[in-house]
Amino acid sequence: MESWNRKLRMGMVGGGQGAFIGGVHRMAAALDQQVDLVAGCFSRDPENTRITGEQLYADPARCYATYQEMAARESELPADKRIDFVSVVTPNASHFDISKTFLEAGIHVVCDKPMTYSLTEAEDLCRLVERTGLVFALTHNYTGHPLIRHARQLFQSGRMGTVRKVIVEYLQDFLSVPHEKLGQKQASWRVDPAQAGAGGTLGDLGVHCLNLLEYVTGDPVTSICADTSHFLPDRSLDEDANILLRLQGGGKGVLTISQIATGEENGLRLRVYASEGAVLWAQEDPNQMQFYRYGKPRQTLTRGRGEYLDEAAGSVTRIPPGHPEGYLEAFATIYCGAVDAIRRHLDGAPLTPREYSFPNVYDGRRGLEFIEKAVESSGRGAVWVEMS
Amino acid sequence: MESWNRKLRMGMVGGGQGAFIGGVHRMAAALDQQVDLVAGCFSRDPENTRITGEQLYADPARCYATYQEMAARESELPADKRIDFVSVVTPNASHFDISKTFLEAGIHVVCDKPMTYSLTEAEDLCRLVERTGLVFALTHNYTGHPLIRHARQLFQSGRMGTVRKVIVEYLQDFLSVPHEKLGQKQASWRVDPAQAGAGGTLGDLGVHCLNLLEYVTGDPVTSICADTSHFLPDRSLDEDANILLRLQGGGKGVLTISQIATGEENGLRLRVYASEGAVLWAQEDPNQMQFYRYGKPRQTLTRGRGEYLDEAAGSVTRIPPGHPEGYLEAFATIYCGAVDAIRRHLDGAPLTPREYSFPNVYDGRRGLEFIEKAVESSGRGAVWVEMS
Amino acid sequence: MESWNRKLRMGMVGGGQGAFIGGVHRMAAALDQQVDLVAGCFSRDPENTRITGEQLYADPARCYATYQEMAARESELPADKRIDFVSVVTPNASHFDISKTFLEAGIHVVCDKPMTYSLTEAEDLCRLVERTGLVFALTHNYTGHPLIRHARQLFQSGRMGTVRKVIVEYLQDFLSVPHEKLGQKQASWRVDPAQAGAGGTLGDLGVHCLNLLEYVTGDPVTSICADTSHFLPDRSLDEDANILLRLQGGGKGVLTISQIATGEENGLRLRVYASEGAVLWAQEDPNQMQFYRYGKPRQTLTRGRGEYLDEAAGSVTRIPPGHPEGYLEAFATIYCGAVDAIRRHLDGAPLTPREYSFPNVYDGRRGLEFIEKAVESSGRGAVWVEMS
Amino acid sequence: MESWNRKLRMGMVGGGQGAFIGGVHRMAAALDQQVDLVAGCFSRDPENTRITGEQLYADPARCYATYQEMAARESELPADKRIDFVSVVTPNASHFDISKTFLEAGIHVVCDKPMTYSLTEAEDLCRLVERTGLVFALTHNYTGHPLIRHARQLFQSGRMGTVRKVIVEYLQDFLSVPHEKLGQKQASWRVDPAQAGAGGTLGDLGVHCLNLLEYVTGDPVTSICADTSHFLPDRSLDEDANILLRLQGGGKGVLTISQIATGEENGLRLRVYASEGAVLWAQEDPNQMQFYRYGKPRQTLTRGRGEYLDEAAGSVTRIPPGHPEGYLEAFATIYCGAVDAIRRHLDGAPLTPREYSFPNVYDGRRGLEFIEKAVESSGRGAVWVEMS
Repeated sequence: MESWNRKLRMGMVGGGQGAFIGGVHRMAAALDQQVDLVAGCFSRDPENTRITGEQLYADPARCYATYQEMAARESELPADKRIDFVSVVTPNASHFDISKTFLEAGIHVVCDKPMTYSLTEAEDLCRLVERTGLVFALTHNYTGHPLIRHARQLFQSGRMGTVRKVIVEYLQDFLSVPHEKLGQKQASWRVDPAQAGAGGTLGDLGVHCLNLLEYVTGDPVTSICADTSHFLPDRSLDEDANILLRLQGGGKGVLTISQIATGEENGLRLRVYASEGAVLWAQEDPNQMQFYRYGKPRQTLTRGRGEYLDEAAGSVTRIPPGHPEGYLEAFATIYCGAVDAIRRHLDGAPLTPREYSFPNVYDGRRGLEFIEKAVESSGRGAVWVEMS
Repeated sequence: MESWNRKLRMGMVGGGQGAFIGGVHRMAAALDQQVDLVAGCFSRDPENTRITGEQLYADPARCYATYQEMAARESELPADKRIDFVSVVTPNASHFDISKTFLEAGIHVVCDKPMTYSLTEAEDLCRLVERTGLVFALTHNYTGHPLIRHARQLFQSGRMGTVRKVIVEYLQDFLSVPHEKLGQKQASWRVDPAQAGAGGTLGDLGVHCLNLLEYVTGDPVTSICADTSHFLPDRSLDEDANILLRLQGGGKGVLTISQIATGEENGLRLRVYASEGAVLWAQEDPNQMQFYRYGKPRQTLTRGRGEYLDEAAGSVTRIPPGHPEGYLEAFATIYCGAVDAIRRHLDGAPLTPREYSFPNVYDGRRGLEFIEKAVESSGRGAVWVEMS
Repeated sequence: MESWNRKLRMGMVGGGQGAFIGGVHRMAAALDQQVDLVAGCFSRDPENTRITGEQLYADPARCYATYQEMAARESELPADKRIDFVSVVTPNASHFDISKTFLEAGIHVVCDKPMTYSLTEAEDLCRLVERTGLVFALTHNYTGHPLIRHARQLFQSGRMGTVRKVIVEYLQDFLSVPHEKLGQKQASWRVDPAQAGAGGTLGDLGVHCLNLLEYVTGDPVTSICADTSHFLPDRSLDEDANILLRLQGGGKGVLTISQIATGEENGLRLRVYASEGAVLWAQEDPNQMQFYRYGKPRQTLTRGRGEYLDEAAGSVTRIPPGHPEGYLEAFATIYCGAVDAIRRHLDGAPLTPREYSFPNVYDGRRGLEFIEKAVESSGRGAVWVEMS
Repeated sequence: MESWNRKLRMGMVGGGQGAFIGGVHRMAAALDQQVDLVAGCFSRDPENTRITGEQLYADPARCYATYQEMAARESELPADKRIDFVSVVTPNASHFDISKTFLEAGIHVVCDKPMTYSLTEAEDLCRLVERTGLVFALTHNYTGHPLIRHARQLFQSGRMGTVRKVIVEYLQDFLSVPHEKLGQKQASWRVDPAQAGAGGTLGDLGVHCLNLLEYVTGDPVTSICADTSHFLPDRSLDEDANILLRLQGGGKGVLTISQIATGEENGLRLRVYASEGAVLWAQEDPNQMQFYRYGKPRQTLTRGRGEYLDEAAGSVTRIPPGHPEGYLEAFATIYCGAVDAIRRHLDGAPLTPREYSFPNVYDGRRGLEFIEKAVESSGRGAVWVEMS
């Protein structure tokens, strides 16, 4: 079991200077000291890759001009040298090609969301992952929060009864200003359909909402009625969407997202009202969760409280109650899950995707289906459309 | 100007023992010491009326067996004795007949919401109010909060720009349990279509949401797509609704209401994101309002702060900042407005309904239109329906 | 039992134009419709009294030039006409003389805090109240909050165990600016030792803290070490104080008050940590109380929840959960208590002060002792001083 | 400038299985990918050290039985191999000896707080650090929060005016239960004077309060009056303390700490009211800070807002607004500062301790002085004692 006696070796595609999420992935991977970054193609610009590699103390010989070269060269390295997995942190449009290239080179993949540019690509990626049997992890990072793990257990255990109403929202004001015209890299690709895909805010925020809701409740959305909007001139992708939801279990709800909600920062909030109680959680204040039962005092559950939280929460908790964990810690928990799955694979006893503690390729496909169905619904005048 | 030298004389229909909202109206009317309750028909049960009257120190001779008798007898009293106005606090189905009876007897009316049982009745009441020229006040009490008055001024003054997104919600858990089967009076009539009207939660909570949203923004809802639900057995009226909104000014939003949202008490919350800023307000914490502008520190505006709040807020503020006002104070502000309008009428210089500082008969009609359109939308499968 | 068939008749001394607390007393007295204001001496300026009386619809013949005249003339009126009690809402220095005058005229008294100008006066007033047997109510209004009543029951019942640590604070910024030099009436008398007494902030805020703490815990403060300050030029009374506390039961704590705490409005907050749990309550958000037990989820108790709150809270609750009550409602509860005690006295079955549901003359004396001991402690360099 | 082309090599003393703070230091050091852990003496028990080293993927040859051996052996390694610095994460009583040993071996030190067992040791350590010229960093981690850095700038820039009142508190319930009798390692040494020093809660929490207060305001505490307590049987160290403060600039305040405050987790909260405004910050919700100015709307400053926060905050911010950072991120910022200082030292251009961005040996001495003065004050009956 060699793989358990060492840190895993990570490569990265994307995440050069000027990028945001690449740095997040690197901190998330580093936090728990299970991973070393040893190779990368950080940018389409080789000079950016070179400088980024230097700043990351990476071997210059393993800072590659193209991801294709990286996949080829790394897979030829001896087993005790080559990267165990790659993190894909580029704009959406290239996720598929990059993931495919590494998977075909026998390298496990951690990929940012949305998984691909289109549902078709997502379908193809599912088949590829099935065929290769390699680990594919999708960073729906908010599922890494301990209290979200606890909430999921509350629903899975039946203690919450049947879901009746859900309100899930994700509000930002990131696109209230035409940053793309002012040269901001993050905004530029996000408002460009060629790079972002069919959904704007739907892909950036909507897929997190759907994933979080279904992850916690275990109750799939069966149909949606979506009304999307964009307000700033010269934009074509949605900046905002209001979506009615119907759930398999008979509950209903709303999913509302925006990147033009002035003053909002990263307002992902989930509220689920079920027959036996309710849970309310907000990403910006992730160390507490409201828990309601009819006629009882409201409870505030706090992260780290092994006395009353499920072991599923405890096992992903790093520090005691009152010592706030945040965004990076939850993100790191996704990496821990992926690292564990990769180690098991290296040892010849791989988990199936259904056994993963982290979002998988099917979750990614579901996200793409959601984007495309929401775009369809809205395009037809905000009519009801079924989810598979 | 005799009317300004004395308190006004109020009568009440409804509000007997076991009722809730009648007591609220009485406290609201009493708080500012402008009104004396002197007559009533507090229940269809004369014994209840008698006991209630006694508890309220009302003259037994002016505690009437029927509202018709009350209207007839009071209107025959000399001008310095008879009631100046009546408060109608019965279940919805009787609002119209009672209001009509008093208006036709020349007596001003303050009426609880929703204004009538049906839109047809609401239309009739509009005509009757127009014909009589009497004051008709509808107690959409939440518009009485000082910070809501301030928010309205923010939008009216143009400082907020154009509304882009609204989220208005009103969540309770009042109907999570079959109280109507356990003899609770409040629940019994609210789940009975014969007494409540076409809408359940729509009439109880939805009309407040619509009114508050349009009151603050001045931007009317032009079409809605409503998905209503009920979950408990033997109920036919909606207990919950999720509604997409489109506004005249191009903004969009969601209106979500529930009386089965376990653990929620009286969660009316309004968020409006406009091109120049945002306001967020919650009824359960009404002494503060969040005010956001892009790229600026978030502000918490607090009630009573004459240094920066609009005079429209200051004029309905009773006590200094940090001394919380609540539900009754806002309700009392509606009464203050009605009292002022009635005094002006008595003095021969009546305001028009459009000049009122409180919700009027047209606001009531709008509420009924909303209920019926939402019921229609949902009944047809949650399709888009236009508001007039 | 004549007194139960009618409202009580109230007179008022103080509360003319430009005053603050007089209007609060009138709203508090009016809210529950048990009291009519019928007479007053609202100001030392007869013209102010006249105008104020007119605005309050009081009989001009019962708007008196002096309180002495008022006491004399009212006590000569027939029993079914004269005031049942007087509310004393003048600056501190005159509380004693006014209360004395009315008590000696056989008229019950409701008085604002601090009760008197000095401890000597307070002692005299205790004897006078004992001698006359009349009702004397002191408006430590914060004890009227339902959740404070519940908290008191938690301690009285033994469920909280022994108090170990208390933190009580009351922070304002009312005196951050030299309002008294700008003609503001409220500030002018409060910073004038001749009118306010030995304590500035100690008398305005400190006595509320002490009273609330002892009311809730039932555990008396036995010694204090007080360090007072004033910062603005030309002031001599304390604007701020930090005080160490020791309690009879072995617990300790801090009491910290300020009227120069920039940005604070009316920040009265109480936290009590006991061997079996803790309660935390803040006046600015009075409809909820935090309740902690070791190793259990934190609970938020909300006003109105008869399912789990003590009947002592329920009996002073007017409206359902989620419909916020505030400052005036709690103040009104003190009036309800006084009204009840006065009715019982009128009916010949008076309660003893120890049976009152509201603060009495001994609570007032305790406040004055606290002021004088804190001034003594601080004057001697912030040394420990014993409370009786 | 070789040192800038590689990660630094860290050793650790303490932090074996069953410890808490060692893991925190390791995550903090790892997060920003500037440090590799390569050596350690994790426990006095060699077997614990061996297992811990294995779990950390450390070279077994560099997992030492004693810290003395570690210092000796590491200092003999070639410059490109040996540890650059050591982290000392043992109980308080051994901090001095370990730090001394490594400093004398020419190795930089990062040390947990309180810095030493006694003020005498602290004085000695100051002289040793001065003599060696090596970097000594003390992990008062809360000073690493971006909003604390911003607050410090607000005071340093003069924008806040003069401090008038401070309230700093740190409340836990960690010692409400006799964990030390139940075998809990953390509690056992903390309640043992031989291991913890003269202060219990004073050393664990009090020094953080003093440090944070002085760090933010720049206004030193000049005298204190401390009343300490302990409640559980068989304990001798303070579990709770209430302390009056006087500041050099004329302000006053309270510092209140507890480890028996039932239901509190890690409640470090700082409030400073100055002549020109106030700041309020709570460690458990570290991504926001309240900022008040007289007569202006309250502002909520949020972490990451480069538009209005000082560069001192921006430079220690990892992720955008709304993506919460927490305890570990702030801790990591202390490490980043230490790493930077060590790199500069390695490059021959060392900073002086006064230029450090992190707490230094003099801050450590100040903490010990505070503990000993507070113990003295309380021991003499809670009298005033001067700080140097």
